Amino acid sequence: MQAIHPVLDAIRFTADGLVPAIAQQHDTGEVLMMAWMTRETVAETLETGRVCYWSRSRGAPWRKGESSGQVQTLKAMRLDCDGDTLLLLVDQVGVACHTGRRSCFYREVRDGPDLVTIAAPEVDPAALYGTPGA
Amino acid sequence: MQAIHPVLDAIRFTADGLVPAIAQQHDTGEVLMMAWMTRETVAETLETGRVCYWSRSRGAPWRKGESSGQVQTLKAMRLDCDGDTLLLLVDQVGVACHTGRRSCFYREVRDGPDLVTIAAPEVDPAALYGTPGA
Repeated sequence: MQAIHPVLDAIRFTADGLVPAIAQQHDTGEVLMMAWMTRETVAETLETGRVCYWSRSRGAPWRKGESSGQVQTLKAMRLDCDGDTLLLLVDQVGVACHTGRRSCFYREVRDGPDLVTIAAPEVDPAALYGTPGA
Repeated sequence: MQAIHPVLDAIRFTADGLVPAIAQQHDTGEVLMMAWMTRETVAETLETGRVCYWSRSRGAPWRKGESSGQVQTLKAMRLDCDGDTLLLLVDQVGVACHTGRRSCFYREVRDGPDLVTIAAPEVDPAALYGTPGA
């Protein structure tokens, strides 16, 4: 813990104690998702090398892939110029999105009025979050 | 305006009327920066094809590159699965960061206690924000 405290102190968390973290696949450059972290989950991520976000809806640490198996291994963590956003270079096992798609950013604005779905699910979401042991 | 309203309605803005927007260089995949947009600046960006953020510090639209010339042309706009984050694929003129670096994410966590600077400025910041006409 001692060694990473200075890094944690460089991060400017929101009044709610959160910092946005962008996850990018380290070798392809694909932007996979954006989620939030706390001081504690940043520390855990650095210590374990497994990405742990903060679930704002559950109010609890969100160890990515804990139930789905679709874990993210941390390859590098970067901080932006004003210290209020993290960029995580990760190795994503399987898919990042709960819909079974590789990236959460699968809807694109085109000429028409509706968003266009540009990627199909690679995994059945039911298989990702099935009954344990099933 | 008419045609883009349905897209705007798909975005889940915060209570403050903001949505985070990640800017990624469309051809290299480099993540350049993260900033915030409002409903109005999303609409302006789609209408003009030039990226316009919302400056939270100034409380005003932030037409990226207006003073520095380092504009971002919009190539594509994507929305994530839960509609609360935008991914902008852009063509960045020059540098995205006010420090003169291509990307704002130029500080990396390494083994030591301090953040390591992994990119040098490509442009003198003073030249980016010099006196008009200078």
